Amino acid sequence: MTLVWQHRFGSDVYPLDERTLALVMRIARCAHARAVRVHVADRYEPAFQAVHAMETCGTDGTWDVFACDVAVPTRRLQYAFEVQLASGHTAYVGETGTASSLQEVRPFHYPYIHASRVLTVPDWAAQSVAYQIFPDRFAIGGRPLVEPSDPWHARPTPTSVFGGNLRGITEKLPYLRDLGVNLVYLTPIFQAPSNHKYDTEDYFAIDPAFGTFDDLQALVQTAHLLGIRIVLDAVFNHAGFNFAPFQDVVRRGRASPYASWFFLHGDRVDVQQVNYETFATRLREMPKLNLAEPAAAEYFLQVARHYVLECDIDGWRFDVANEIDPSFWPRLRAELRAIKPDILLIGEIWHDSLPWLMGYAFDGVMNYPLRDLILRYAIDESLDEAGFAQAWVRLFLQYPRPAWRAMWNLLGSHDTERILTRAQGDVSKVGLALALTFTLPGIPMVYYGDEIGMEGEGDPDCRRGMVWDEGAWHRDLRDAVRRLARLKASHAALAAERTVILRAEPGVLHYVRGTPQGPQIHVAICAGENTVPHEGAPLFAWASTSRASGDARRLVIWESDR
Amino acid sequence: MTLVWQHRFGSDVYPLDERTLALVMRIARCAHARAVRVHVADRYEPAFQAVHAMETCGTDGTWDVFACDVAVPTRRLQYAFEVQLASGHTAYVGETGTASSLQEVRPFHYPYIHASRVLTVPDWAAQSVAYQIFPDRFAIGGRPLVEPSDPWHARPTPTSVFGGNLRGITEKLPYLRDLGVNLVYLTPIFQAPSNHKYDTEDYFAIDPAFGTFDDLQALVQTAHLLGIRIVLDAVFNHAGFNFAPFQDVVRRGRASPYASWFFLHGDRVDVQQVNYETFATRLREMPKLNLAEPAAAEYFLQVARHYVLECDIDGWRFDVANEIDPSFWPRLRAELRAIKPDILLIGEIWHDSLPWLMGYAFDGVMNYPLRDLILRYAIDESLDEAGFAQAWVRLFLQYPRPAWRAMWNLLGSHDTERILTRAQGDVSKVGLALALTFTLPGIPMVYYGDEIGMEGEGDPDCRRGMVWDEGAWHRDLRDAVRRLARLKASHAALAAERTVILRAEPGVLHYVRGTPQGPQIHVAICAGENTVPHEGAPLFAWASTSRASGDARRLVIWESDR
Repeated sequence: MTLVWQHRFGSDVYPLDERTLALVMRIARCAHARAVRVHVADRYEPAFQAVHAMETCGTDGTWDVFACDVAVPTRRLQYAFEVQLASGHTAYVGETGTASSLQEVRPFHYPYIHASRVLTVPDWAAQSVAYQIFPDRFAIGGRPLVEPSDPWHARPTPTSVFGGNLRGITEKLPYLRDLGVNLVYLTPIFQAPSNHKYDTEDYFAIDPAFGTFDDLQALVQTAHLLGIRIVLDAVFNHAGFNFAPFQDVVRRGRASPYASWFFLHGDRVDVQQVNYETFATRLREMPKLNLAEPAAAEYFLQVARHYVLECDIDGWRFDVANEIDPSFWPRLRAELRAIKPDILLIGEIWHDSLPWLMGYAFDGVMNYPLRDLILRYAIDESLDEAGFAQAWVRLFLQYPRPAWRAMWNLLGSHDTERILTRAQGDVSKVGLALALTFTLPGIPMVYYGDEIGMEGEGDPDCRRGMVWDEGAWHRDLRDAVRRLARLKASHAALAAERTVILRAEPGVLHYVRGTPQGPQIHVAICAGENTVPHEGAPLFAWASTSRASGDARRLVIWESDR
Repeated sequence: MTLVWQHRFGSDVYPLDERTLALVMRIARCAHARAVRVHVADRYEPAFQAVHAMETCGTDGTWDVFACDVAVPTRRLQYAFEVQLASGHTAYVGETGTASSLQEVRPFHYPYIHASRVLTVPDWAAQSVAYQIFPDRFAIGGRPLVEPSDPWHARPTPTSVFGGNLRGITEKLPYLRDLGVNLVYLTPIFQAPSNHKYDTEDYFAIDPAFGTFDDLQALVQTAHLLGIRIVLDAVFNHAGFNFAPFQDVVRRGRASPYASWFFLHGDRVDVQQVNYETFATRLREMPKLNLAEPAAAEYFLQVARHYVLECDIDGWRFDVANEIDPSFWPRLRAELRAIKPDILLIGEIWHDSLPWLMGYAFDGVMNYPLRDLILRYAIDESLDEAGFAQAWVRLFLQYPRPAWRAMWNLLGSHDTERILTRAQGDVSKVGLALALTFTLPGIPMVYYGDEIGMEGEGDPDCRRGMVWDEGAWHRDLRDAVRRLARLKASHAALAAERTVILRAEPGVLHYVRGTPQGPQIHVAICAGENTVPHEGAPLFAWASTSRASGDARRLVIWESDR
């Protein structure tokens, strides 16, 4: 029988630093691989120089996964895999396929580790607890800077203006600090006609409804004093209709020097027919930008640099990042890192993000695929513990490991229904889901109000005014978030991307975080009568009810020394 | 049983133009997939809009391969595969795995087709017949410009100088034209101490042993008059020891403004210890260049532009291309294409080249993996017809299809033993191997002298002086090359990358080139008693002897209308 294997450039071989490569090898489960070793040498050597045992990383359901990190002193590697099968046979796998001896195999080559291909994620990322704020709906500081269209607790419409502003956010920073948040992401704050500000009119102006440039500086400064970092939203895939360069094209058509900044079909802008590319489908208010045009790229690089240089922001989240010309990212990353070496760069990508996580674009992306898995497991119960673990292995191994220090593990956002609504009001399930975002690799990100059990269907209902009346809070949920946030920030094991699944079977999931050298954090979820013995007092415990079985699912987190 | 499938970004989904995506889906053979369809929609549509049947592309031994091209009017695509299994079951495959219904599947997304990610290969490439020249060994025009160290037909040593020069090449252009060559690749010609010139001293000077700048201009102009294009060798991975910037570092160490152009470990250059990175292993004569350094990158961009602007060369072949910082290529490609829109860019990469063939680096690479297959089939007979076809399917599908218009199909080079020597002097086998390079997708490339049956072991023996004494030629081989070259240049079917394998079984290989709309070229190889019926008179026929079976292998090429 043919050995079915998979080993791809990008997710299965990538540098961890300039002298270390991570290698991942997948063998189809039906092959029953017992062990995998990898033979290695500098690519100019005539024979292999060393052999390393690969570690078993579990299965994603289709593939058994093996991994190891290899020191590469010369930065160049040739390597071939030795697969021991349950049948007793040994197969050797190289670039052109399988061979029956090491002499016959054609090795894979990793030609040279370039610094530009090492995904360097800021050290601080892995111990972050993030919080997403939709500025019009979080808090009003002082008097509203615009006349609200509706009362604060009205159900929002697509055009509601509630009057939240930057000063409101600054005033609530102590609340966030108390919650355990150390990273705040604001959806767009630049001048734009809508309430969501994704239709930017002027990238260099703070929207007057939100405040002034001074207000932004004050927010960042105060946040930094409290140990909280600030990430802003960069909407560079499209501008707003009133963006001055687009207005010039509206006036002058192809004759405008800005015509090439957009994708105009025809000589003049036809607003009725929408004869220009836009975000999504014919959204005339959001003309798509062409960042392959050097002048446009230069303009947006300037925008990106400006708020780092002038306001000391700590990161950018890039809207619709996967629809922007990828040529833009290497330069953006290099320029921003030159200004602020530990800046965090996150892409809004809902789907496979590998091409953007290979060292020259983002540190991480908004982790919607993890959300999807957690919903299926913790809320819908369409996955059991074994299925969840397999799907998680699959997702985790889809990207270079360093990206997992920066993935934004979210359960909801301004673009989705809220988690409590998704859970049909079952707070116990939300707590379980939250505990997963905090204890799996990545940065847990709480959407404002989810921590106190706000509800809301999809946009615009998920954008209600934040509830500040403590009497209306689900205090147990908020308390859980506070405890999980402290756990995340204070246990280095939860910052290591290393995660070992010790048990994954229907009714029991048990995984452990951290390196073998230091203390480790264990997470166990048991359904029904199942148990996992744990040492010492739990650091956190939570029980959710299962609609399917009627049983409780009990989550326990504890620390071990090994 | 779990469906084992593979669908990778890069080789399995890539743009053919700004409104068309090519999709490839692999299903493990053990699944016995009968048919695959792909459901598609714009990525902002709530439901699939169309479904396309995928074409069967054969098997690589492990996977059954299915492919189709999909029109993408909005440049954005979501898609999911429907796999009909022999068992009668249907599986749906999307980004997160398999599902049992189209409603449940999570589609793959191709976010947006950017022009910068479309691999645009010059139109002329696909009908090229290429010829590689090692200038010191091809022909002496006029008197040698240096004193030869050895007579022309001596066995070369690593330091031999035979006195070949550019004027010699110019004088022999009619010979090449007669042979049917329309593309000539010269190994390096810039000033360098060695005979091979891979240790460049001055990138802006022609080596005096080879001639002058005027000689190069005359060569290119004469070639162009004869319909022959010229590609030069760009050695940008490393310089020579005497390269002025490196000499400055030798003198001044870290204090040199050029220190960052190299990889120096320590404050001073230690020539004995070789405390700087080099090509291969401690080759002190070849210090490795750091093109991540902007000033160094700018310098080599200038070199690359210079010979296009001043000499009108038609392409560059980049030496050790996969060890150069990949950040260099997008800019190089953009700048050279801006100067000469149909310039050809080829990488010297011996191994998996996918990352360099995705639109922003090279058009093609030196096709050593194909050489390897052809040697195993036509020379060593370690692969039979079925095995060769499977390995070829695997190789062909490893890269985006447009790259196959530009792959350099070679049987040998200045870095390998010569093909006739590899074939232990069996000219009949060399003819068979040559016919494969001319009739499979890619640019056939003849290493100087292989067409007349020169012999030679690996470097330096493969670099003997060209034999101009016609009495010493294998005339049947040369005649075969002439006829194959005319076939390649005059049949559009051999320029289409489309290749369908009609039969592949031990003893018979039959493939057809060209689109179904136009005339097609058939190639059949039959061993022993096997036959493939063909229409009309053959365009080319060749018989090789099989050492294994004693039978002849008969290759026939013919044209059909369908």
